[in-house]
Amino acid sequence: QTVESDERALLNVGESEGISFSKDSLFLMNLRFRMQNRAGFNTLEGDAFEVSEYEMRVRRLRLRFDGFVGNPKLQYYIQLAFSKADLDLETSVIAQPIRDAILYYFVNENFYVGFGQSKLPGNRQRVISSGNLQFADRSTANAIFTLDRDFGIFLYKTIPMKNQSILQLKGVVSTGDGRNASAINDGLAYTGRIEFLPFGRFANNGDYTEGDLEFEPRPKLAIGITYSENQKATRTGGQLGQELFAARNMNSFIVDGVYKHLGWSVMGEYLHRNSPDPITSNEQGDVRYVLVGWGLNTQISKMLDRKNELAFRYAKVTPEESITLFQQRVDEALVGFTHYINGHRIKIQGNVGYKWLEGLAKFENTGNSWTGMFQVEFGI
Amino acid sequence: QTVESDERALLNVGESEGISFSKDSLFLMNLRFRMQNRAGFNTLEGDAFEVSEYEMRVRRLRLRFDGFVGNPKLQYYIQLAFSKADLDLETSVIAQPIRDAILYYFVNENFYVGFGQSKLPGNRQRVISSGNLQFADRSTANAIFTLDRDFGIFLYKTIPMKNQSILQLKGVVSTGDGRNASAINDGLAYTGRIEFLPFGRFANNGDYTEGDLEFEPRPKLAIGITYSENQKATRTGGQLGQELFAARNMNSFIVDGVYKHLGWSVMGEYLHRNSPDPITSNEQGDVRYVLVGWGLNTQISKMLDRKNELAFRYAKVTPEESITLFQQRVDEALVGFTHYINGHRIKIQGNVGYKWLEGLAKFENTGNSWTGMFQVEFGI
Amino acid sequence: QTVESDERALLNVGESEGISFSKDSLFLMNLRFRMQNRAGFNTLEGDAFEVSEYEMRVRRLRLRFDGFVGNPKLQYYIQLAFSKADLDLETSVIAQPIRDAILYYFVNENFYVGFGQSKLPGNRQRVISSGNLQFADRSTANAIFTLDRDFGIFLYKTIPMKNQSILQLKGVVSTGDGRNASAINDGLAYTGRIEFLPFGRFANNGDYTEGDLEFEPRPKLAIGITYSENQKATRTGGQLGQELFAARNMNSFIVDGVYKHLGWSVMGEYLHRNSPDPITSNEQGDVRYVLVGWGLNTQISKMLDRKNELAFRYAKVTPEESITLFQQRVDEALVGFTHYINGHRIKIQGNVGYKWLEGLAKFENTGNSWTGMFQVEFGI
Repeated sequence: QTVESDERALLNVGESEGISFSKDSLFLMNLRFRMQNRAGFNTLEGDAFEVSEYEMRVRRLRLRFDGFVGNPKLQYYIQLAFSKADLDLETSVIAQPIRDAILYYFVNENFYVGFGQSKLPGNRQRVISSGNLQFADRSTANAIFTLDRDFGIFLYKTIPMKNQSILQLKGVVSTGDGRNASAINDGLAYTGRIEFLPFGRFANNGDYTEGDLEFEPRPKLAIGITYSENQKATRTGGQLGQELFAARNMNSFIVDGVYKHLGWSVMGEYLHRNSPDPITSNEQGDVRYVLVGWGLNTQISKMLDRKNELAFRYAKVTPEESITLFQQRVDEALVGFTHYINGHRIKIQGNVGYKWLEGLAKFENTGNSWTGMFQVEFGI
Repeated sequence: QTVESDERALLNVGESEGISFSKDSLFLMNLRFRMQNRAGFNTLEGDAFEVSEYEMRVRRLRLRFDGFVGNPKLQYYIQLAFSKADLDLETSVIAQPIRDAILYYFVNENFYVGFGQSKLPGNRQRVISSGNLQFADRSTANAIFTLDRDFGIFLYKTIPMKNQSILQLKGVVSTGDGRNASAINDGLAYTGRIEFLPFGRFANNGDYTEGDLEFEPRPKLAIGITYSENQKATRTGGQLGQELFAARNMNSFIVDGVYKHLGWSVMGEYLHRNSPDPITSNEQGDVRYVLVGWGLNTQISKMLDRKNELAFRYAKVTPEESITLFQQRVDEALVGFTHYINGHRIKIQGNVGYKWLEGLAKFENTGNSWTGMFQVEFGI
Repeated sequence: QTVESDERALLNVGESEGISFSKDSLFLMNLRFRMQNRAGFNTLEGDAFEVSEYEMRVRRLRLRFDGFVGNPKLQYYIQLAFSKADLDLETSVIAQPIRDAILYYFVNENFYVGFGQSKLPGNRQRVISSGNLQFADRSTANAIFTLDRDFGIFLYKTIPMKNQSILQLKGVVSTGDGRNASAINDGLAYTGRIEFLPFGRFANNGDYTEGDLEFEPRPKLAIGITYSENQKATRTGGQLGQELFAARNMNSFIVDGVYKHLGWSVMGEYLHRNSPDPITSNEQGDVRYVLVGWGLNTQISKMLDRKNELAFRYAKVTPEESITLFQQRVDEALVGFTHYINGHRIKIQGNVGYKWLEGLAKFENTGNSWTGMFQVEFGI
């Protein structure tokens, strides 16, 4: 009986597993999708509470398939994206449907190698899937200073330590030019990250999801440090941003951590980007600059019960002196409520936030604004 | 035995149902695709029958998945499109693969709410799927005056009346800026529609398919009235068209109806768009205008037998006086033959049509033209 | 028992068959994907071995589904592509995800007709799927002179001859304007091809895969001749290339052949494009020209064992005299090693090549360059 069953292909479906097609240890394909539909508003001023624009749209729509062929050691992970923002079509005219397309070879339980396009091991919030966030968007610090996806060779090494402690080493050599970049020059990017989990693994990989939906019975902590050197980068943020008028070297230093316990979650990130000569210009005198400076993001949240969560965020972006002519300091504070219908897969989120410029938090200061967002995430 | 069967995922395939993956009332995903391949020609003149261009292409190619997760009350509907025309790349450089991405919550049998991007409840022919048309294209009146897809909140209410009569109320608050619009301004669109089916439901939802493939044994009728107010619209047709040089308010009034009986189908639509100040211009003096005026579409068809249908269309577009400098009156007449191999899923269509300008139907008048089209639709 | 089984839908998965959903002879859908991830370099000069740029990217990412509905005689084949190069976004801003979208009707065992978008029966290497190549890229001759995909009517006729010999006739009427072209003018393209397989069919359709992975026990040979007339073509290469400033007639003549035996494979292609008036210019005096001239591609390979292959290529492009002002002669020579993990589906490839201009092969000549490429192909 078992033999017969082994020879047949298996179909599985589920609320949290998507759809999978498999055959023993010879074949697996998981199929998933998710979408984020949202309706929100922005005001133009901090003190006159008048909506200047509504933001109502499909923010993300993703198809994902992953699995293995021939051998569970040889895995693939492909993610395609179709919303206007996902395709980079809010800021560019080149559609970029491929988010992830990478092969992994698992040398052993604690070491695997990837070749393809995927997220760099940068700041924690970036690496957390957009499907596992507790606010509708990542922080303003992430927007400016994050390392994004890149194409290259990825090394992941886990070192078990005593008392369940875990050390993780991640290293990547990549193009440095971001998703679906064309061949540009001979400059590459080199990224290394160390993570330490002193109290052992989080339930359900909770060091890379926001909110403590697992109600960790004992305190869990993860700390990460990343350094990335991007040589001859051609975009203002390295992997992201407008094209610079000339290639520049830049480097990023990131420290982040997350703590979870009994429904509480505290996350912090510090990001710093540096470049010896951040400003580029063309013959017309237009200026484009490397986004140098530092950013901070802190989030604290509490599960009110098994399904509902309250979260706060404070984040800031401080440009380096050399670019303060072009780039303002930005601070943002948000309150978020999330109702989890099926964990992070199906959830309803409400956010209210205030953003202020140059550190001047008073409502009447020019450029300060309110934002409100209602978002439904639905996925398998 | 039943218990075991309940625990297993189910695969179903079929000519008219696509591929479905399901598990009890916990999970369902239907997967479908369809494509429309066509070869046709246009002439430049009405009297010299010389082909000016061939139109041979994949007109539509769609992937669709819909179903529910956790509970049949929580449904999703996603449709992606990949042909050049589908992606809006005939007229723009921003690729738009998402056609539908919406969640529905079924409050009860007769009331459901949607949140996301989908078709507005505008004129009947637009709401009829392009996979259920009896001609290769929708009418010229539809092209100019239709409400298209939009992002927002959709309410659908059915009110059963006596003698099987049905009243349907549809209401939507949406961005008014069409598919995959970015946040633009604080103007929204408000659309309401009433439908009345005095003789009860059509077989197989036939009020929203063209042609009476069901051979309705008793007369069936549906009448619909739509009113839509689009505030601060930024495109010439609201949800569609080129960008205006300045935002404009516009409103649409639509009446339509369909009658089916014993293989006969008669459909009529009247559309009227209005705007207080339809013309916008830029500093160079270029003009772009709201497509104000009224349109008419009438179609009558007869199933010759279970598989073959003959159809006629007459449609017209009459611009409002204020824009007649820029927009001509257009009339079109078409004859269509359809061979249904597997209902609307797999069919072969042939159309021949004549189009004339400014009401001057004579073949020798400038700008009048002939068109011919052969189309094969194939889908699951 | 058999009856019950007949009524159920069937799921199959496999390393070389992808995922299939089927039901008797009523329904079949095969689902496949494949990706090609690569990392390579180019030098700027032949003698100073310094990398001028790294090329690291997802070169191809494809989703494919094919099968039949209702009847195995009515088949479909759809292929979508998502990488930047696949979408034509390296050279254009119009995304083109549809590669193939075609219906086939099998009149009988030896004759079938297609309607839709697919590859023209041009040079052998083009028609060989990019998933069945023995080098990372097709030849430079293919890049300049190939016929590509087109939309039209495709006829395929097989004529069995005595002694297992086979004659194949292929004829296509198509737009001549390439993938996803809009209606442009009344010029069409007419393509015919004759193929002769004197020693019968290749194992596993090996006349359209590179390398003799099948170790043909007896010599197999295929020879093909193509002629294509493209009227009022609007791009420099007909189906491919930049837009010309004016439409031009062009024609292509192609001869190719492949021989396989005991792990050896020899392939040769000669391509010639002609146009009576290849040069077009605009008012500013910019020039765009039909890529007229001739190209050659030869490849020889030997399977070292069941999994490893060594291959050589020499290819050249010789522009016609009329365009030598704008187009240089190019020669390239490559060595390739391929490790086949699961046939062509999963393989690792390494290429090293040298390219020289104007027939001047010395390393110190300007414009000569080296290239190196490492590529992993992964698919189901």
